[in-house]
Amino acid sequence: MTTSPRALQLSQVEILPGFWHDRLTTNRERTLPAVHAKLKATGRLDAWRREVPNDQLQRHIFWDSDTAKWIEAVGYTLTAGRDATLEAQVDEVIDWMSQIQESDGYLNSYFSIVEPDARWTNLRDRHELYCAGHLMEAAVAYSRATGKRALLDLLCRYTDHIAATFGPGPGQRRGYCGHPEVELALIKLAEATDSPHYLDLARFFVDERGRAPHYFDLEAQARGEDPRGFWAKTYHYCQAHVPVRDQKIATGHSVRAAYLYTAMAALARLTGDAALADSCRAIWTDLTAHQMYITGGVGPAHANEGFTFAYDLPNETAYGETCASIALVLWAQQMFELDGQGAYIDVLERALYNNVLAGVSAEGDHFFYANPLASYPHISPYAHWSGIHTDRHYRRSDWFGCACCPPNVARLLASVGQYLYAATDDTLFANLYGASRVHTTLGGSDVVLEQRTDYPWAGAVQLELRSAAPAAFQLALRVPGWCRRFTLAVNGAAVDAPVVAGYVRVTRTWSPGDVVTLDLAMPIERMRAHPEVRQDAHQIALQRGPVVYCVEEVDNGPRLANLALPAEAALAAGRDPGLFGGLGVITGEALRVEPAAWPGGLYQAESTLTSEARPQPFRAIPYAFWANRAPGEMRVWLAAA
Amino acid sequence: MTTSPRALQLSQVEILPGFWHDRLTTNRERTLPAVHAKLKATGRLDAWRREVPNDQLQRHIFWDSDTAKWIEAVGYTLTAGRDATLEAQVDEVIDWMSQIQESDGYLNSYFSIVEPDARWTNLRDRHELYCAGHLMEAAVAYSRATGKRALLDLLCRYTDHIAATFGPGPGQRRGYCGHPEVELALIKLAEATDSPHYLDLARFFVDERGRAPHYFDLEAQARGEDPRGFWAKTYHYCQAHVPVRDQKIATGHSVRAAYLYTAMAALARLTGDAALADSCRAIWTDLTAHQMYITGGVGPAHANEGFTFAYDLPNETAYGETCASIALVLWAQQMFELDGQGAYIDVLERALYNNVLAGVSAEGDHFFYANPLASYPHISPYAHWSGIHTDRHYRRSDWFGCACCPPNVARLLASVGQYLYAATDDTLFANLYGASRVHTTLGGSDVVLEQRTDYPWAGAVQLELRSAAPAAFQLALRVPGWCRRFTLAVNGAAVDAPVVAGYVRVTRTWSPGDVVTLDLAMPIERMRAHPEVRQDAHQIALQRGPVVYCVEEVDNGPRLANLALPAEAALAAGRDPGLFGGLGVITGEALRVEPAAWPGGLYQAESTLTSEARPQPFRAIPYAFWANRAPGEMRVWLAAA
Repeated sequence: MTTSPRALQLSQVEILPGFWHDRLTTNRERTLPAVHAKLKATGRLDAWRREVPNDQLQRHIFWDSDTAKWIEAVGYTLTAGRDATLEAQVDEVIDWMSQIQESDGYLNSYFSIVEPDARWTNLRDRHELYCAGHLMEAAVAYSRATGKRALLDLLCRYTDHIAATFGPGPGQRRGYCGHPEVELALIKLAEATDSPHYLDLARFFVDERGRAPHYFDLEAQARGEDPRGFWAKTYHYCQAHVPVRDQKIATGHSVRAAYLYTAMAALARLTGDAALADSCRAIWTDLTAHQMYITGGVGPAHANEGFTFAYDLPNETAYGETCASIALVLWAQQMFELDGQGAYIDVLERALYNNVLAGVSAEGDHFFYANPLASYPHISPYAHWSGIHTDRHYRRSDWFGCACCPPNVARLLASVGQYLYAATDDTLFANLYGASRVHTTLGGSDVVLEQRTDYPWAGAVQLELRSAAPAAFQLALRVPGWCRRFTLAVNGAAVDAPVVAGYVRVTRTWSPGDVVTLDLAMPIERMRAHPEVRQDAHQIALQRGPVVYCVEEVDNGPRLANLALPAEAALAAGRDPGLFGGLGVITGEALRVEPAAWPGGLYQAESTLTSEARPQPFRAIPYAFWANRAPGEMRVWLAAA
Repeated sequence: MTTSPRALQLSQVEILPGFWHDRLTTNRERTLPAVHAKLKATGRLDAWRREVPNDQLQRHIFWDSDTAKWIEAVGYTLTAGRDATLEAQVDEVIDWMSQIQESDGYLNSYFSIVEPDARWTNLRDRHELYCAGHLMEAAVAYSRATGKRALLDLLCRYTDHIAATFGPGPGQRRGYCGHPEVELALIKLAEATDSPHYLDLARFFVDERGRAPHYFDLEAQARGEDPRGFWAKTYHYCQAHVPVRDQKIATGHSVRAAYLYTAMAALARLTGDAALADSCRAIWTDLTAHQMYITGGVGPAHANEGFTFAYDLPNETAYGETCASIALVLWAQQMFELDGQGAYIDVLERALYNNVLAGVSAEGDHFFYANPLASYPHISPYAHWSGIHTDRHYRRSDWFGCACCPPNVARLLASVGQYLYAATDDTLFANLYGASRVHTTLGGSDVVLEQRTDYPWAGAVQLELRSAAPAAFQLALRVPGWCRRFTLAVNGAAVDAPVVAGYVRVTRTWSPGDVVTLDLAMPIERMRAHPEVRQDAHQIALQRGPVVYCVEEVDNGPRLANLALPAEAALAAGRDPGLFGGLGVITGEALRVEPAAWPGGLYQAESTLTSEARPQPFRAIPYAFWANRAPGEMRVWLAAA
């Protein structure tokens, strides 16, 4: 097996002023405080205080995960600079956690206080291992950033307890969580603590999943329940319908799915498990070829918060949960680390710049749970019992009863530096472009590289060696799948290198001050969807670079369904410095049917109509920034006149 | 007040061989036996047998209405010819009913046997008066057809009990049913038995609806419940949010709505209540201008089985319940009888030829509950908990747990003869065209008129006076709203008459053998929807005469979303004698994008695609007859290239 590239540590990557710097600033200054305030106000922090009785705050089975993701986000944020206030907030909670941890290591604010006898009795529904997993991730991130071991020690004790409880041995439970997450967390914990037995536990959970006799059946029977009474009707919902190596299709709840697939891909790499890798690749191909929105959203259905069937991508009712796209980013990174193909980063980039970023407001303190690709501000009075929360479809909320998304987007953005680069011993992969400085060791030499770019608004990227000594290594620059023309130069001299597996590579002994310039042509693209996607037929979406654009009523007036972009319409890419600190915009002239000429009635014979489509200027903005101004309609897919 | 036209009695209209004759034959020979077999097999008939204990068949609160609609359908069917078998089936049930009726007249198979103490305790939710109403309608239809009074007597006793129980007097309940229906039934019963106090009761129920203090609030409190716990969240659901004269918008559950509006329109006419008439007209305008599918379907949402907001007409998820279109037919007829405008019959005709007829299979023994305007045979594995029963969206079922639609479509079709003609003392209105013979009295003379036509496949209509003596009367021939050009002749001589309120009128002393010929030009129309209907933007629907067409996969292959009809596409109307006894079809050449040229992946830049839309013949069939052949996709609205 050749060495596959691994992401750099977050501490190795400085984000310099530019697109991601703006996002990180908002995340640190607005999102983290907003999430902390909500955790506090809703009782999620007090839930950890053993002395607060449950009738004062109604603890919930997955509140622990919300706190955990916030701590994880703080951890990543502290990597770029310690902050006494943030650390004090976290350390106080860790202290409460230490008081709640049971003598056997068990650590869960809900079960320990509210239902101590129900521990491990319903893995299928009650998120117990899921919460443990998020705490493990928090512990790894926080200890890595601060060097403080308290939380990591708590979690190692808890994980040792879990490892003793679950497994194939006599007296152990052969169970696994209905909501995958602990698997990928165990892999992180194993690496951070150099503890291979945590990796073994992750493998056990993954291998056991979906096997017969089915653990969820046995467990339900032990509770005196009929397993057929499972509220979600099918174990597809939690990817436990068959063993994972027999799974070839993305199915069920999309966050559960992508967390599981993330762990599967990491395990396949770490253990050289070819069958597991093949399942990962098959599911990946299914998802990206059949079940992914152009925004990188996945899981179109509200009903199961997940997947339906191939090419079913409704726009107005799209679920596209923020957490699902975040999970897709995690999975894509693991697929890249497994196979080293740039195509995985194409998907990561699509999800990150579009669906994930749409999950948080420009101001940083409001959040989308679902991310539709078309939205109408008219709300059915029955929306609250229609199964589709259309009220969430056009304005972000400051919090949710099920609050998975806000701290999840906070932790993902705080960790974005992890995704810019990857490396093997002698090769540096530039995966996502963004102004940054990277410190690493390549071919035995310490290397500092600085990247200058206005990406994603422009395709020009410069990388300059800033370390003091020459260094021999290979630079692998990703040529994104969206890019069809580029130039590459070293110190101004053109280099003609082929694109292999998504990368152009330059191998040389680099001298301080050497500059590599990659210029990715970034025209506005009229994107078409596969002819099987009935919801996008006869429509186009505008994309430039990795950014998908949308039209909003605030720029273009209402009735956006009546806009049409003729093939010959001139389109111009520009920059609006007044728009949320400076965003790319696309302007042009569209055709538009207006109701003014409509003679009345709901239906008319076309031959009696005099109304004609009229030219009208339009403006599209990045989808990720929609619903930040006056409420109104929004569409990604526009009629292709 | 001028005399408004009234529908003729069913017994006055013979349906002759032709379109409706075929439907009636199927209804009598296939649908009635199928419904009877299901009523029997599911326990709905045995539910009436007091000696059958409930644990054997699980009586249900609205089963009585299913039996009642079947009896009503039998009654209408017997009008055209007695049938000893059918009558024996009904008479047996009537006998059981007589044994179940309580000494005070109360008649309900569920409450009398299962919950005798719960009688009249939950009018909001439990359909008690609704069931009574359907039994009244059954009694009127069956006694009128057979002269047998047994059922009518049972129902008069029951209605007298209801009239004693409900009303504004001391000791009476000021309640009304959560599901309107009894109001329109009481109006029929009042007329059939010449009992004005039944009309007073109908008026009481209508007037009381939505008044404060709200009966449903008081009733819930009396049950010890919080009224805010109402499962449907809002009294809009049952059109009881405000008093009926303050209602101007079609809202809530669409069947409940249209049954209520039917009674309101009839009462407005019978009592000269101008305010009530104005509400009817306002709601009618709202519904037909903002909330009606081109198929005459109403109520787009599954969540409330009803209305959402103006111009919200999703096609694939359209609910468009069969019963709702049936109720729209009833309401349209009452609006016509109130105002005498042909435009009401335009809507009646649209609903009848499209959504209502689609509710039953060509074979007569399978039924649609929901009637979408686009359908895809891929079913989400989660459809059963998605809130949208997509499995019902492409194949009819032989029955439903909530079986309102099958017997409803049976009774509506059995009574279709009622809608062909209407009359005042001296004017005969020809409303729906169809081969038929009508016997009536006009201007004091007995008149027999015979209508010959191939409608709805052709627009030529001949009416010939077949009675023996001359007669002076006015003939008012409806010029449908879809028709923009027609010729009228009497005995071959052209007549130039204006269209007034939707009718051309010829007044003369008619001699035996006189023939009026109306020739309605019936081109294929490319229909457009109002520019506010986002779901139909850039699309057309094909309509010819009153018939809306659709394309099906069985004729046109899959991926129907990719079909586009250029404005210049030649379209031909034809007739396929092999299709369900001979249906109109529309053929032509469409453009089509096919996936064969797609280079792979879900999304591609348009500039890289070589695939072009290619011409391809297509065939559209009447929407009412879709899903009768091989399962597959269906669409009414097609892209207008």
